[in-house]
Amino acid sequence: MIEYRNLRIALLGGGSVGASVASLLLEHGEELANRVGAGLELIGVAVRDLDAPRTPAIPRELLTTDAESLILGADIVIELMGGLEPARTLILQAINSGADVITANKALLATHGPELFEAAEQVGAQLYYEAAVGGAIPIIRPLRDSLAGDRVARILGIVNGTTNFILDLMDREGASLESALATATALGYAEADPTADIGGYDAAQKVAILASLAFHTTVPLESVYREGITEITRDEVESARKAGYVVKLLAICERLTDAETGVDGVSARVYPALIPISHPLAAVHGANNAVFVEAEAAGDLMFYGAGAGGRETASAVLGDLVSAARRHVIGGPGVAESTHANLPVLPIASVTTRYQITLQVIDQPGVLATIASMFSDHGVSVEAVTQSVTSVESGADGPRATATLVIGTHAASEAALAATVAAVDESPVVSAVVSVLRVEGL
Amino acid sequence: MIEYRNLRIALLGGGSVGASVASLLLEHGEELANRVGAGLELIGVAVRDLDAPRTPAIPRELLTTDAESLILGADIVIELMGGLEPARTLILQAINSGADVITANKALLATHGPELFEAAEQVGAQLYYEAAVGGAIPIIRPLRDSLAGDRVARILGIVNGTTNFILDLMDREGASLESALATATALGYAEADPTADIGGYDAAQKVAILASLAFHTTVPLESVYREGITEITRDEVESARKAGYVVKLLAICERLTDAETGVDGVSARVYPALIPISHPLAAVHGANNAVFVEAEAAGDLMFYGAGAGGRETASAVLGDLVSAARRHVIGGPGVAESTHANLPVLPIASVTTRYQITLQVIDQPGVLATIASMFSDHGVSVEAVTQSVTSVESGADGPRATATLVIGTHAASEAALAATVAAVDESPVVSAVVSVLRVEGL
Repeated sequence: MIEYRNLRIALLGGGSVGASVASLLLEHGEELANRVGAGLELIGVAVRDLDAPRTPAIPRELLTTDAESLILGADIVIELMGGLEPARTLILQAINSGADVITANKALLATHGPELFEAAEQVGAQLYYEAAVGGAIPIIRPLRDSLAGDRVARILGIVNGTTNFILDLMDREGASLESALATATALGYAEADPTADIGGYDAAQKVAILASLAFHTTVPLESVYREGITEITRDEVESARKAGYVVKLLAICERLTDAETGVDGVSARVYPALIPISHPLAAVHGANNAVFVEAEAAGDLMFYGAGAGGRETASAVLGDLVSAARRHVIGGPGVAESTHANLPVLPIASVTTRYQITLQVIDQPGVLATIASMFSDHGVSVEAVTQSVTSVESGADGPRATATLVIGTHAASEAALAATVAAVDESPVVSAVVSVLRVEGL
Repeated sequence: MIEYRNLRIALLGGGSVGASVASLLLEHGEELANRVGAGLELIGVAVRDLDAPRTPAIPRELLTTDAESLILGADIVIELMGGLEPARTLILQAINSGADVITANKALLATHGPELFEAAEQVGAQLYYEAAVGGAIPIIRPLRDSLAGDRVARILGIVNGTTNFILDLMDREGASLESALATATALGYAEADPTADIGGYDAAQKVAILASLAFHTTVPLESVYREGITEITRDEVESARKAGYVVKLLAICERLTDAETGVDGVSARVYPALIPISHPLAAVHGANNAVFVEAEAAGDLMFYGAGAGGRETASAVLGDLVSAARRHVIGGPGVAESTHANLPVLPIASVTTRYQITLQVIDQPGVLATIASMFSDHGVSVEAVTQSVTSVESGADGPRATATLVIGTHAASEAALAATVAAVDESPVVSAVVSVLRVEGL
């Protein structure tokens, strides 16, 4: 066995990812040392409660509640506490004490990323965050390095496993949102308070990180447009399937030119959208994640895998650890986060997409023409109309026949579409606007 | 505009990838300079014929036939000539003159990789080769860096676009191998001499590279077991589809323990195999590539995209160029190729897989029992038997009824299976062994 000098690793956080990182590090230490050319010595794990049960177990002598002291003796600090504070303060302390930092903290990066990257750059420290997006899936490094010579045009990600599990269950078993969420909670895929997932907040944090990286531009979390899946119904999912689509919560960022102002910029947004069943993203089932990247030269790429899980996420953390450790061995000031492009972030109003609108209308002659003219009056071009099941509902003048119209539009602006829907909603021939869903161009 | 110092880039080879690299480098030069923090000056492109037509065009003043002189003035050399010589000699010259080298040359890496990596390590140069496997797909960097803290258990790759295009056409349109190959040739997916692709030689080179990287072990090309798709028939593809499988040419490498000797090692092999229709690899259509990675902690990952094409492959080359250039800016001796594990490479005889065997048998009572006992006599356990279409053929004693038996086995060794097939083939109740295909465990 070769004798190496040791690098001192401090771990902040002993949750499921932290416990897996500690366990893998202790178990595979010699193998990793051979890969790095240095020993990786876990000097301690900072936790809030020394006696909390952990799986896998962490040796008692490694645990401490004093994160600040632990950091002081470390070459590399791994932050897996989550949340904004004290994670932010501890990471800044680590950077300023000369350590490299690895974090999986998407909320912190999306909120305080620029501050952390700047602090790191000033002292020549590195900040690694492969585990912050897509769990085990290598996506940060491919965007940062592999595609560094290319131009990313658009990224479409399924980056939240909980919502994908729910939508997949609704699609494959006809479950309602409520029952699918209950199943997700029972299986541990959803938190007790599922708002961060089903409200799209988690995905919004991740897309802010991806957009910043892909477009060499700071994309603040506040500028990400966000809709969750809370309004998605079983009927919408079923009718999407009949039309050859599946509903996915997509985290999208792309280079975009605002059609009116001609401004070149970046859009970052999260919403449920219809994608064709034949698209590779439609085949992402269960709690899996996938990131689909459209690049100018490379064409279409997809990165697929487990988006969460203690051991899975720990794999990404350990990949970063090997990179950080190799840099310690070889020396050099490292690479600064690239934000030279400084593109403006465009509002959702700059985005044009196709839409699928489902209306409940009164089944009488001329209704289709009336509705079609409302669309054209607002500059929204109709691509296809399907009229389906006719039923009977009670109207003001007694029972009347109704029909369901599913209208697919060509690409339209957010504003034009909203005005159209408002007008349609007030029309006496329309009894209900059942759903309005974007169809992502793929 | 910021003024940077220039890094001098020499390009060897002006084929479709080389011309695309030159074009992207000239077109995006300023953008790349901002990402790197240094100018990337293309000082010349070494070609065999100055007057050959190229798409995209390369400015005439950059072209030279004197590769050796070009190398001498370069900080970074990009080798896109292909073939073993003079590529090998020129790369060694570049390394010894202090340049970093980027290559897409899979044949060279699979054949002389250890020599090149050792030469680079001795002078502290780096050798990048993201474009050698999977075209535009980032797979080398994820294996080398992102999964560096994990243990890869198995890789299954569709790494040859030509054969995937052919098999996909046979599967989706019922084409014969010959007509699918003709279509591939007409569309430019197959070379005039398709042997390297359909014989599995190209895939064997790529799996040698992937296996060496994933298992930190030198895997020589000669130790890769190889079968091509030349024997695959339309009937096999069709009957696979009916049984819920598709036929793919798989490049497989995995950690393996030889059941008899107990030796831990690595297996690398290429052959057509059946994979379940529901597996993500089954959805890889046309000339696309995908690499499916099973890692201990990360679980299943898949990397998907264009496996060939001038611009697509150029994207991977430019990603390597940015990495190499950043290293020049930051300094440091770089990372040596990791081969510390030195695992033995096991022969195909160490591999056990399931099989699907299709037999034409005489349709008379007791045949199934006879055949089943031949399997069990050789220690091959039958999982399922399907008897299908009965037809009439002319036998020695006049016309006789025949049936098709499709036999699925449990995992069996290569040797046991071969002995079984030999015995079955000699049996008087068997009129033909129609096909023997591996079923990859997924």
